[in-house]
Formats: sequence, C-alpha cells, structure tokens
Amino acid sequence: MADSSLISVEEIKKHNTIEDCWLVVNDEVWDLSEFAPDHPGGGEIIYKHAGRDASLSYNGIHAQSVLSSNLDSSKLIGALDKRSVTDEWSKPPPSATPELKLHDKPPLETIMNSQDFEDVAQRTVTKKTWAFYSSADTDCLTRDRNREFFGRMWFRPRLLRDVKRVDTSTTILGHAAGAPFFVSPAAMAKLVHPDGERAMARGCVPNRIPQGISSNASFPIEEIVSAVPKDKNHPFFFQLYVNKDRSKSEALLKHVRALGVDVCFATIDAPQAGKREADERVKADEGVAAPMSGAKASNDKKGGGMGRLMGGYIDPSFVWADMTWLRRHWPGKIVVKGVQSWQDAKMSADLGIHVLLSNHGGRNLDTSPPAIMTLLECQMNCPEIFSQIEVLVDGGIRRGSDILKCLCLGATAVGLGRPFLYATNYGQEGVEHLVEILKSELETAMALVGVTSIDQCQPGLV
Amino acid sequence: MADSSLISVEEIKKHNTIEDCWLVVNDEVWDLSEFAPDHPGGGEIIYKHAGRDASLSYNGIHAQSVLSSNLDSSKLIGALDKRSVTDEWSKPPPSATPELKLHDKPPLETIMNSQDFEDVAQRTVTKKTWAFYSSADTDCLTRDRNREFFGRMWFRPRLLRDVKRVDTSTTILGHAAGAPFFVSPAAMAKLVHPDGERAMARGCVPNRIPQGISSNASFPIEEIVSAVPKDKNHPFFFQLYVNKDRSKSEALLKHVRALGVDVCFATIDAPQAGKREADERVKADEGVAAPMSGAKASNDKKGGGMGRLMGGYIDPSFVWADMTWLRRHWPGKIVVKGVQSWQDAKMSADLGIHVLLSNHGGRNLDTSPPAIMTLLECQMNCPEIFSQIEVLVDGGIRRGSDILKCLCLGATAVGLGRPFLYATNYGQEGVEHLVEILKSELETAMALVGVTSIDQCQPGLV
Amino acid sequence: MADSSLISVEEIKKHNTIEDCWLVVNDEVWDLSEFAPDHPGGGEIIYKHAGRDASLSYNGIHAQSVLSSNLDSSKLIGALDKRSVTDEWSKPPPSATPELKLHDKPPLETIMNSQDFEDVAQRTVTKKTWAFYSSADTDCLTRDRNREFFGRMWFRPRLLRDVKRVDTSTTILGHAAGAPFFVSPAAMAKLVHPDGERAMARGCVPNRIPQGISSNASFPIEEIVSAVPKDKNHPFFFQLYVNKDRSKSEALLKHVRALGVDVCFATIDAPQAGKREADERVKADEGVAAPMSGAKASNDKKGGGMGRLMGGYIDPSFVWADMTWLRRHWPGKIVVKGVQSWQDAKMSADLGIHVLLSNHGGRNLDTSPPAIMTLLECQMNCPEIFSQIEVLVDGGIRRGSDILKCLCLGATAVGLGRPFLYATNYGQEGVEHLVEILKSELETAMALVGVTSIDQCQPGLV
Amino acid sequence: MADSSLISVEEIKKHNTIEDCWLVVNDEVWDLSEFAPDHPGGGEIIYKHAGRDASLSYNGIHAQSVLSSNLDSSKLIGALDKRSVTDEWSKPPPSATPELKLHDKPPLETIMNSQDFEDVAQRTVTKKTWAFYSSADTDCLTRDRNREFFGRMWFRPRLLRDVKRVDTSTTILGHAAGAPFFVSPAAMAKLVHPDGERAMARGCVPNRIPQGISSNASFPIEEIVSAVPKDKNHPFFFQLYVNKDRSKSEALLKHVRALGVDVCFATIDAPQAGKREADERVKADEGVAAPMSGAKASNDKKGGGMGRLMGGYIDPSFVWADMTWLRRHWPGKIVVKGVQSWQDAKMSADLGIHVLLSNHGGRNLDTSPPAIMTLLECQMNCPEIFSQIEVLVDGGIRRGSDILKCLCLGATAVGLGRPFLYATNYGQEGVEHLVEILKSELETAMALVGVTSIDQCQPGLV
Repeated sequence: MADSSLISVEEIKKHNTIEDCWLVVNDEVWDLSEFAPDHPGGGEIIYKHAGRDASLSYNGIHAQSVLSSNLDSSKLIGALDKRSVTDEWSKPPPSATPELKLHDKPPLETIMNSQDFEDVAQRTVTKKTWAFYSSADTDCLTRDRNREFFGRMWFRPRLLRDVKRVDTSTTILGHAAGAPFFVSPAAMAKLVHPDGERAMARGCVPNRIPQGISSNASFPIEEIVSAVPKDKNHPFFFQLYVNKDRSKSEALLKHVRALGVDVCFATIDAPQAGKREADERVKADEGVAAPMSGAKASNDKKGGGMGRLMGGYIDPSFVWADMTWLRRHWPGKIVVKGVQSWQDAKMSADLGIHVLLSNHGGRNLDTSPPAIMTLLECQMNCPEIFSQIEVLVDGGIRRGSDILKCLCLGATAVGLGRPFLYATNYGQEGVEHLVEILKSELETAMALVGVTSIDQCQPGLV
Repeated sequence: MADSSLISVEEIKKHNTIEDCWLVVNDEVWDLSEFAPDHPGGGEIIYKHAGRDASLSYNGIHAQSVLSSNLDSSKLIGALDKRSVTDEWSKPPPSATPELKLHDKPPLETIMNSQDFEDVAQRTVTKKTWAFYSSADTDCLTRDRNREFFGRMWFRPRLLRDVKRVDTSTTILGHAAGAPFFVSPAAMAKLVHPDGERAMARGCVPNRIPQGISSNASFPIEEIVSAVPKDKNHPFFFQLYVNKDRSKSEALLKHVRALGVDVCFATIDAPQAGKREADERVKADEGVAAPMSGAKASNDKKGGGMGRLMGGYIDPSFVWADMTWLRRHWPGKIVVKGVQSWQDAKMSADLGIHVLLSNHGGRNLDTSPPAIMTLLECQMNCPEIFSQIEVLVDGGIRRGSDILKCLCLGATAVGLGRPFLYATNYGQEGVEHLVEILKSELETAMALVGVTSIDQCQPGLV
Repeated sequence: MADSSLISVEEIKKHNTIEDCWLVVNDEVWDLSEFAPDHPGGGEIIYKHAGRDASLSYNGIHAQSVLSSNLDSSKLIGALDKRSVTDEWSKPPPSATPELKLHDKPPLETIMNSQDFEDVAQRTVTKKTWAFYSSADTDCLTRDRNREFFGRMWFRPRLLRDVKRVDTSTTILGHAAGAPFFVSPAAMAKLVHPDGERAMARGCVPNRIPQGISSNASFPIEEIVSAVPKDKNHPFFFQLYVNKDRSKSEALLKHVRALGVDVCFATIDAPQAGKREADERVKADEGVAAPMSGAKASNDKKGGGMGRLMGGYIDPSFVWADMTWLRRHWPGKIVVKGVQSWQDAKMSADLGIHVLLSNHGGRNLDTSPPAIMTLLECQMNCPEIFSQIEVLVDGGIRRGSDILKCLCLGATAVGLGRPFLYATNYGQEGVEHLVEILKSELETAMALVGVTSIDQCQPGLV
Repeated sequence: MADSSLISVEEIKKHNTIEDCWLVVNDEVWDLSEFAPDHPGGGEIIYKHAGRDASLSYNGIHAQSVLSSNLDSSKLIGALDKRSVTDEWSKPPPSATPELKLHDKPPLETIMNSQDFEDVAQRTVTKKTWAFYSSADTDCLTRDRNREFFGRMWFRPRLLRDVKRVDTSTTILGHAAGAPFFVSPAAMAKLVHPDGERAMARGCVPNRIPQGISSNASFPIEEIVSAVPKDKNHPFFFQLYVNKDRSKSEALLKHVRALGVDVCFATIDAPQAGKREADERVKADEGVAAPMSGAKASNDKKGGGMGRLMGGYIDPSFVWADMTWLRRHWPGKIVVKGVQSWQDAKMSADLGIHVLLSNHGGRNLDTSPPAIMTLLECQMNCPEIFSQIEVLVDGGIRRGSDILKCLCLGATAVGLGRPFLYATNYGQEGVEHLVEILKSELETAMALVGVTSIDQCQPGLV
C-alpha cells in the first residue's frame, strides 16, 4: 500500500456512526457500514468501535484473515497512518456512547412493514413495556393464530380490470375515513413514547384514520382529542370498560360526549382479565396510572400483571339487558367490542347494535377463536347481519392483504392495536409511516385482485 | 469514580444470594441479580461467584467491555476498595455452596403454571425419576398429542352474561369437590418428595380435590388417607390393578373399603405395560418398592423400566365378565379406567359402570387416541351415555381452559397425573399452589365463555 | 514415521486446490480434500491454507487430537520435511487467492438439481441480484407454497407397462419442443452472467426448449434471437408488459413480429408491482437498464426495489376489452400470463385466448393461489377449457415430477423462471445442464408412473 | 482429602473403557462413565482420555469448576497420588485406541428399537454404504412420509379382553412364520457386514421370519440358503429383476427353484432407477458386485449412484402380459412387488397373483404414495381382493404398532428392508435382536388393542 493512502486518525474519527462506520483492525482501515448489520456477532460490537481501533477486541475473537476473506476488497480504505495516533484515541471505547447505544432505533425510513416496527420495539422499549404490550393469555395460541389464519386464506384474483385509480376511502360508523382501518383502543401508549396517544392522534390525521381511545389511555381523553386542531373534525371512538360503580361510567360517558365523540365501544370480553404470564413475571412500575379510569399499575403475590391489576374496576355483571342503560347514557353509536361467536353477533344485530369481532388480541381467553373465523361463521350462519349493522374486526391484522380479506368477507373496517403501539415508539412520524405502509399495501392488494373501491369487495375473491 | 464510592469486601460479601447477587469484575462491583437469569451462559456460573471476585472466570470468556455494554449503568455499584481484600475472599469459590446449587428449585411463588412445575422437575429431580414420570410408550406420539389436541379446539364464547360469581364446585362420583378435577392415580410419588402421596393428600384438602391413589403408591393407602384429619372427610379414589392372584386383590379391596374409601378405579388399559424407552434406559434403584401391590423396581436385560418391571403382577386375563366379581367385592362405585373407544364406553354404560377415558398418559400404547378425541366420538356415536354414567377424562390436561373444554363436551370431571407429581416436588405447598392455579385458570375461562357454574357447560361453547 | 516418508514443501505446494487439498498441521501433512466440505467451520478456512502450514489457525481453534480422531488414518500423508521449509512458504496465506475464493462456484458436474443451482447462486451472485431474483411480495407465502404444494400431491402410478422408450417431446403453442417446459420470461438475466438471455438461448437449443423473453430483458430481443443460428428455427415467446403509451407497445410488437416471433404473452398480473421487501432493502445499481422497455433501475425513498421502480411504465388500465387491440397488433398466438382464478381462465377460453396460470412467482400478491391449485379448480369447474385452449402453468416447478403432475392435470407445458436464472450463473453450459436434469427427471417420473409419451398423461395418475 | 484416599495411576489405568471410565482432571479423579454420553461436546473426547490425565484438554475448554458444579459429588473418586505418575502415563493419548474409536458401536443390549440400529449405522458404516442404503429419490418426500403416515393413524383399542396369551404366528404365502413380517429384499448386505445376507438368514431362523433375497444380493442365493441347516426348512422368498435378456432370468429362476424356494417377488416398480442424489454424490467402490445378477458398482459422469448403475440390466419392457411367461418358468407362488395403485392391485387380483404394495422405500419415484395409503384405497375401492389374494405391504414400518395397523387394514404380512440392513451391522445377533424387538412390540400392541391372534385384526381397530 502506497504511503499516499495512509489514513489519519483525524479522518477516521469522523466515520463513527451507524451509517458511516470505519474501524481500524491491525493497522488496516475498513469501512464496515454495510457489513455491520450482518455481523454474526451482532452489529453493536462493531458500532462500539466506530471511528476507533478495534484490534484488541477483534483479535480476541477472529483470525487475522477473517475480515479480508469475508469482505470485498473495496471495503479496505487504506492503512492507518501510525504517526497520527493519539493517546486519547487509543483508549478503549467508553461503555456507551449516546449515538451508538445497543438499544438505538434504526432510522424510520428503513422500516418497511408492521413487523419491522415490532422488532424494533422488542429491542428498544423497556422489558415491562414489551411484556405488557406483547403478552397474551396463558399459551398465546390465540394471539399467534390470529396472524397465522390470514396466511392460510387464498385470494381468487380477477385481473384485466382497469385499476389505474384505486380508492381506499370509506365511511366507518358514520365517519369519512381515508382507509378502512382504525386504531383499536389499547391501553397506556405513554409507556412507549412520552406523547403516547397524543402522538398517535396526530399521526392519524393526514389519512383520517379513526382513533379508538381506551378507558385506560395514558392521557385523559380531552388531552388526546385536543392534540388535533378542532377544525380537522378528526374521528375518535371511545372505548368503555363499564365500571362496577355505574355512576362513574355515566359521568365518564357524559364527559366524553361533551368532547364531541359520538361512537362508544363497549368492551364485553374482559369481565375477568386473562392470565398474561409474561406480563405477570415482570415487576410493574407502580407510578404508572390511567387518568380516566383511575386504574394504577401495582404488584401483588401473583405478579406484576398490569393487565390484571389495572382491570380491577371492570364490572363482570355487565349483561345484554344493560344495553338499555348504555343507550340512555350514550345517544351516539354503540359498538360491542369483543364478540366471539356468531350467536352473539346475531343477538347484537337484533338489538341494532354494531359489533367489533375481537378476542382482545388473544389477551383474555386462550383458544378463543380468531376474529376472521368468527367472521366466516357469521357469513355462513347469519349473513343477514351484514346489512343490518356494521361488523368490524380486529386481531392479527398486519398487512394490507389481511385488511382486504376482512372486507371481502363483509367487514366494514378493521382495527389494529399492537402495530399502532409499536409505531408510536417513533412518535407521530412513526404512526404516519405505519398508516402509509398499510394504505399502500392495501392499494396494491386491491389492484391485484381487481377492485378499485372498497364497495367492490365480495366473498368470491377469497 | 470518587474514592467515597469504594465498596468494601465486607459489604460485597453480604450480597451473595440469587435474589441479591453482586460480583466483582476487574475491580468494578456489579449488581447482577436481575441479569443473571438471562445470562446466555446460564445463571449458575454467576451465582457461583455471588459476593466474590469473578474476574478470573469472566476474563476467560468475555471481553472487558461486555458487561458495560450489556447492562444499564445503574447496575454498576462502584469500585472495589482494594484495601479491604482478604486472602480468604480472594480464593476461588467452592465447587458447590448449599444455597446456590445448580439444581436448586426457584421459589414457589415464581411458579405460574403447570409447565413451570414440569420444567423445574426436569432440572431438579433425579434422572431416574424424570425418566419414570415423563416417559411414554415408544415414540411418545400419544403423550404429546394428548396436549396438542386441546390447543386445536376453539371456544365459542358467549359474552355479556353476569359472571361476577363463578363457582367451580361440583360433585364427582358422589363426592362434593371444590373444582371439577382430581388427582389421577400415579405411581411412586415418593421418588419426587419424601412425603409423596401424603403431601399430595394434604395439598388437596383446602379445595377438596379428590385424590386418586395408585395400587403402586409409595405408601400403604392407610398412611395416605390418615395424612388428612378424619373429620375433613376428604374424598379418595382407589385405583386397582387386578392381581393375577385374585385373592390378593380381594383382600386389598376389603382393606381399602374398611378405610372408608367408596370409589374404585379398575384399570383396564395395562394388561401389558407399554415400552417406555426413556425409563428402560436408566437403571432403576432396586430399593424402590410399592407397599400395597408389593411391586419392586428392578433391572433385567431389557433395561430398568420401572413401569414394566413393577407391573408384572397385573392380570392380563381380566375381562368384562369379571365386573361381576368386582361388584361382589366392591359395593362402592366402580369406574373403569382406560377406556379408549366409544364402543367400550357404551358397553360400560350398558353395565351401569362409570368410565375414565384415558390412555394412561400415552404410556401404554403409542397412537392410542387422546381422550378428548374419544370423548368427541362418544358425543357423536352414543350421546345417551352421558345421562347414564359419569364420564371422566384424563391425559394432557394442563390448563383451566383444557378442563373447561372437557366439561363442555360432557365430562363430569377430569384427572391430572404428571402435573401433580411435578408439583409434589415442592411438597404439600406445591400441590396447593397447583390446585389454586388450575382453579383460578378455570374460573377465568368460565367467566370468559360466559358460564358461572359447572352445570352450564354445553357442547355449543366449543 | 520413517524418514523416507517425509514430505517436502515442494510437493505439498502442489496440492493447493479444492479438489486436491493438503495442509500441514503441527508438522503432519494431511489430505483434507474429502473432509473440507464437511468441516463444521466451513470449507473456506481449509481451502485458504491449501498447500500451506495451517498450524497457527488450527491451534487457535482445535485441540491437537481433533484431526487424528476425526479422520481416517489414510488421510495422514506423512510428516513435513522441515529442511524444505522456506520463508516464503511460511507466511500466512494471502487474504484471497483467485482459485480459492469464498464465493467460488463448484464445478458444474457436481450440480445435480435445480436446488443446487439456487444454493450456488445465493452464495456467489451479488447481494442485489440475489435480492431481486429471490424476493417476492411481503411475507413470501405464495412463493414458498408454490413449491410446497407439489410435495403434497401423490402419484397413482400404473406399472407393468412397456416403458423402454419414453418420449418427452411435444408441441407447445404450435412449436415442436424437446420437452414440455419452457423458460418463463424473467427480467435482467445479465445481472447473473454477462451473456444473460443470450447464454440462455444457446443453452435451450440442443433440446429445443422454448424461451420466453421478458420486456425487461437485459438485451434487445434481436440480440437474444440472433444468439441462435437462424436455421435452428428456435422457438421464442415474447412477453409484453403493455405500456401506458400504447404506441410504444405497438411499435415493440411490430419489431418483435418482424423477428419471426409468433407467440406473445400478455402479462396481466402486474398492474401494480408487489412489495418485494428484500429487493427494496438493497440499494440498486442505477446503471442497470432494460433496453426494450426502457426501464431503469433506481432508488427512491421507499427503497431500491428494482421490480417496483422498473415497472413504472406498465399500464394498470389494460382490460379484457383491450384484447381486441392486442389482436389487431399481433396476428400470432396470444397467451394471457398471470391468470389466477378459474373464472378468468374460462373468460379467456371463451375469447379463444390461451392462458398461463401464474402468480408471477409469488412476486406481486402474497397469498394469491399457487397455479397448481388454480389448475385443479379449472379441472373441477370448467374442464371444457382444456380442449379449447392451451393451459400453461408456472410457479414453484423444480423437479421433473412437478412437471408431470401439471401435465396430468391438463397443462400443455410448464414454465420455469428462477431456475433458469440461477442456471445462467454458469452461462450456456449451466442452462444446458439444467435442461438435461429436468428432462431426465421427467423421463424417470414418466416411466415410473407408466406413461411413455406426453399425450398419455391424465388426471387419474395424480 | 485424606492421604488415604489418594488413587494410584495403576488403579486409574484400569478404568479405561466406555462402561467404566475414570479421568484425572487437575489432580482430581472423576468417574465419568455415566456422564460421558450426555457430554455436550460428545462422549468421544472423554473416552479418549479414559484412565488418563485429561487436564490439558479440559483446561483448554472449561473453567475449573465446571466439573464439580455439574456432577454429583459421588462421582469424585478421590485425589491423584502424584507419586505414582509415570512418564508413559503422562503422554497425550494416542489418536485412536482400538477399544475407544469414534465409530465404535455401542453394546447390542443397549439397542432398544429399529431407530437405534439406524442411528448406529449412520455413525459407523462407511459414507458410501450409508448413502446407498439411506438415500431415496430426489427430495425423499415419499421415504419420509412412509414413516410419518403411521404416526397419524390412531387405534381404537378394545379392552377388557383376555390377552394373557398373545400369539403372533401366522402363515405367509403358504409358509408358517413366527410373526407377520419378513425381510424385504434389499441389495448388497455385505456392505454392512462381511456375512451380509448369510448373517441375516441365520438371525431370522429362531422366529421363522421369512427372508426375501434380492437379485442384487451380495452372495449367490445358494450361499444364503445354505447358511441355514436344511432341516430347518426356513422360508426364503426370491426377488427377481427381470433381465433384458430373458434367458438369463429363466436360468436364474430355474436355479433358484432347484434350491427349494417356491415364492418369487417380481419387482415391477423399477423399470428405471430413481434419482438418489445422496448415493450419486459419493463415489462408489468399483470392486463391489452382485454375483447373481452380475451387476457391478461403477461411476460415470452423473455420479456414483449404485442404485442406478447396478440396475442397468433391468428390462423396462416387462408388462402384465409377461406374467404368462413368468408363470411358465415359475410354478411356485408369484407376488408382484411394487404395486402403487388400487387399480393395479385389482388387476393383479384378477390374474390371481399376490401383491406387495411398495414404493421401493421411496427410492424410485418421489411422491409415489405410501403403501399404507394404497392399502386404504384398496379397502375403499376393491375390498374383495383381500379374500382373493394375499396383500403384503412394506415401506416405513419401524414399530410393532405399525405392523398391527397394516394387519388391521387387511395385509397378510409386512416387509421391512432398511431396518434389517441396519441390524445386520451387528451380524446375526443384531438381526435376532431386531426380530425380538419387533415381535415384542407387536405382542404389546396386540394385547393393548385387545386381540390375541393375527386373524382377529380388523379395520374397526384403526
């Protein structure tokens, strides 16, 4: 190597980021930016030495030739100019540099789908947050089947249709929406981002994606609703856990209604909380609380299950007859959330109440049926309900093609819960990005089965 | 690091337990209590050095920076005060300290489900005990499918029912029980705990869980029955292997009856023992014996299979006609244990004899059908039997939801065998804990499918 | 070891290739040619030291005895003659010697099936080429099921037929062919070999395998067609993406027709490109372009997906009615490529247009149905079409037995896309080799189900 | 440790076998006999040091405390008496000691099932032998499904029958047999044992298991038949590949007949050899030959596939009409081997010729149907054939329960091929042991489904 190609420490030090990552190994300077993510031992150990001399760590693990035999020679920048070495530079790297932490999130533009968001969340949120969000009842069979069942359904595409213009816009429960999906209400979004549900709201605005707000949201509902300028008239749905003390629910409903919200999801699948063992095994931070419901995280001898311990106020005596009570206190639209059998769906339709087929993300009763299965049973046993009420669906939806399958089988729209929580890890921009991804996937799927608007979806396509 | 934060050896030595575990690595003091269970190399090597200097072991495996890059800086307690180091403290740790052994059981309160009990047993009981308990016939297909089949059945929950009060109590074979499950008779509980079946009995009392007692129990039945105060009137079921020498069985029945036991399980699925290869491969301790049946563990040229070698006295000529004989010698209730086809279940019902659908935990004939499958075949081919006799079920039941599925399909109650053996690893407290877990899981499942008492269970829910 | 068996460095240096690979380890000379491919640590590290002293690397990893205890003693050639050692020879091996590179292709004669070609391609082509060729829409479920579905179909062989002479020749779309398969048109073969589609063409000649040429081929069609001597009269099929600017398509069709090509595949399953995430994640080389369509590789904020970015000119408004337009500009045979439902197949048959059942290798819509499934649905719902038009099939075909199954179910011939791309990695010889493999596998399968010519295939055999 | 417990090298050296294996590690003497098979790094490295000082190897891998923390203290025999150490003893162990070789077979009495035999064979036979025996056509789907399909069939046991005496004896093709199974003819048993088919014959005698002899056996048939004393009247079946030169087949049949053999299996599923890629990839030893057929192992440009290269003489023109020819030259019983569809089975029954449902162990046509599937199709489509001819079955049978399932579905007897080859690895004793295992498993399975003789088997039990 000619003397002219010697690289100075001054130069090397500049390349100290994930995107631009040089290392010195035994006096050779290598550009490992591209290789690092594929490093069998993980990228972190490489990033740790970005812009530095990694010889010591390297030689403890690898033979001298591993680098040169695994990398293209174009990645060898040159030889270290040893005269430029300083004492400061030679020190071992500090244990954690702010820009290169083990738990750093990759840039948002590298996130391609909802699974990417989930993977990043698993690596970067706290153990407790991950346990609370990702856990489900006992053996998590329902949670996992929720997703798998979509992969087992085949389309029957109809091609050679003009699909130049594909339009995903629709109306959900009386509200115009940019796409046939909404944020399924999920608790405690602040655990993943300081702006929590407020960031979510702002991220939903550009495409008019309705946001379901949980009784156990991290913020009072007025703070969430006010995150969006009033003139946007953004659609919000309120999710209610009926309180053992009905007067508290009545007051809450009145308060919500006063904010202009006109859709109420009455959750019926949680008279008792499921046993989310991963959640129980991690101690909860007792400072966490839900301002609207007043629920607080705590720990007892069964463990630190936030789902269980925050659900103590929910009334297990809430029954069909109470719908009269609910109607009295809620003049807007009512949706029962958590219907899991075609019989209950039909009963609800007979009462003129909309349904959200849902198993609570598999969180409450393991081996409760995936919603897509209940939806199919409705098509077989009581197809008339689809013209009587709106049938919504959630659970396991991760792709635009999943959404399209639900619509073909009669759903008005679908909800996504965990994906929005994981996207909120990136704040408002993350939520916007997720919406764009899902909408784009849906458009592609629609074009490729040969439909251009939501109302063209029909069972023959699946 | 300021001098004021130096930590003395006196202080460090105090943090020498699994719950509170400090280590010194290269003169830094770290709190590894939380990290240790996640250590890729296992927690034991960390616990071994609790309260000590682990530098030597550490440096042999890890680069200096591994600790600081993987742990939150809050776990770094401070720097070692080198002046406080003593010769005694610097020695390598003894090879095994009583409180930190590799095979130590985790605290009972961290056990969340029956699988946890099983995992602990696998790690902590002797090789032979594990082989004897866990093994099954040849390729273990039936044993494994027993469990899997429950995961493939879906509920059809009915919600918006008042489930404030869920009551699991029921009557099994004439005995009031706190929950619709019982201890399936299994042999030789002493292998896992010195109090064996006696500890089990005591653990069953608080919730009135009937205990089935095997002919091959580790204790004579009178010692098991007397482990519970007489005034508790605790329900016991006696499991009989009919002896080739009928007079011995007659004497035994008379003896059992005299103790006040009025239910007899006549085991019919073991005219020949299955081939439990894992059991055969481990030499048996020839001192082990079952006092009631007189069976003794031994070894022969086929191996050390306790199941096979202790079953030599069982009469393979026991036939349906012999039920007359049994009735003559047993005025109480009779249950044939090990029915595996709907035809046999119907034959038993015609004779007015109760059945326990069971494949002996998959231990006798591989690819014999899971009991839940036989139960379904009964529902399809001879539903009338459910009003004629009690149909019990065992095999693969591990969750409250599994229990509920059996009840919905017509079973009066279900038995659990291995889970109770593994819980007995913790003695009476372990058994109580398991009962609480199962009962609590059952209550949750009942509430979430919308039933509040055992008699509301019906096939439409599955 | 006798002095007479000392081996000189001069001798050792000769054995420095993959096929003939000696190494010196601690003064013993070993022949590792046979062992190297099985080396748990990979063969490369061994090849790197071929003909050299590997002691240093070896001792860093293995105990002295590993070699002698794992290898037959016949592999120990003898002891190193230390007097022959030179300074030059003792140096560590260069980081990459031309004949032993990590990414070297194994000799063509060791390639036994299409999977071998794929495995080699994965190791030896550029990251971008692999990503572009192998990727498919979103979760790649359709791509993978395409293959799996063939493994789930069983033959019903009829034996004791005279199968001395098995003849695979047939007629495809009016052209005599040596076997009932063709190259499915796939884009950009130059990425894998400088001669790209031209090498493919030459490799197809010996067995008269028709070649489908993509609109996005790396060469202008005239250069591909002219790669084969005119007097061979080799069959080529032209695959058209209809351009938003129809006049461009018209000019292209005219040009193609003038070259003597008389079959046009009109692709209908790509009105919008699928989301091939693996392709998007790798930056495209912006120098790459398709001369016929004018499409160019590029990168945008969504990523570097060549499939998406090169498909921008495709007209999503192309509909059934446009078949009239196509017929006007193409007097030859027309095949609609990408039919995915029996309804569309029937519609095409009604118009007298041939079909290629295809899901574009799973690249456009995930969970679109495997073509073999659509073929079965055609047999069930509209069997009459098989006598009206030719039904071709592609997707997931890798074995001669796969081809036979399609023929039995009514297909005239089948296409293979990726396998031909991966074979082109070896140029013309690779393509010839693949054709021979497939034809030979097909002959064997035909003989073993008891048919000797293509027209004897019938549904009862599957 | 008291001086009295010091162990001398003289003593230690005695414990140098697999069964009794002591090692010295850092001056402590450990008994590792029991632990060695569970050693994560394999038992061989431990056996290599049996009776020796293993400190050097040990310390290179493990921390000092690993032994003491993983093993019961009872395994610590004592401390090394250092005064007894000799120079000879201190040397590193030789690379391979006869009694402790890597490829040593475990004692026969530790073999519990046919899978154990297979596992040992995989480790101990030559690469080529393993490739030839274990390989199957292309992707080996049929070979693997052959086994799996048995695991998916459930018994419907009928209990409380008198099963004191279970009798497995039966008549196969006119010959009394001790159990309803026979050796399926397989080629070249000498590859696995010098006595090859002769050892097999002797191992079959005690239980009167008929032996099928392949045309490609390693010995001339007269040498195999004569391995058993004439007065045993042992049943042999001759398997014929019809030669392209019929006169050769005629001569061979005459010769075989003269030896008193009266059953001929005419193989019909090998008009062309399958593509056994594992076999092709390993070079054949060209010295290997089959004396009866004259077939010789060789290598060509396709590879070293013994199956393919030795099958060149087989006549692919052999057809149903030729049965007349065969009958003329074979007055004894005729079985067509390799029937794979119920139609062919029926055709054979119409001709009064017995059938062996077989797919040649999956070796010839991948995705040809498992014989148990063809057997089921016969039960459904042509049940009458079971009273007209004997229906035999082979392929994937490894357990007594597999045998029983075939019998229940109408088979007279079943054949096992590979299991007998793998058992021959242990010579005559191995074959006897395998027969005992299978017979014992069958007896157990019969008792547990409630039958005591072969003629009681019926479809309702499966």
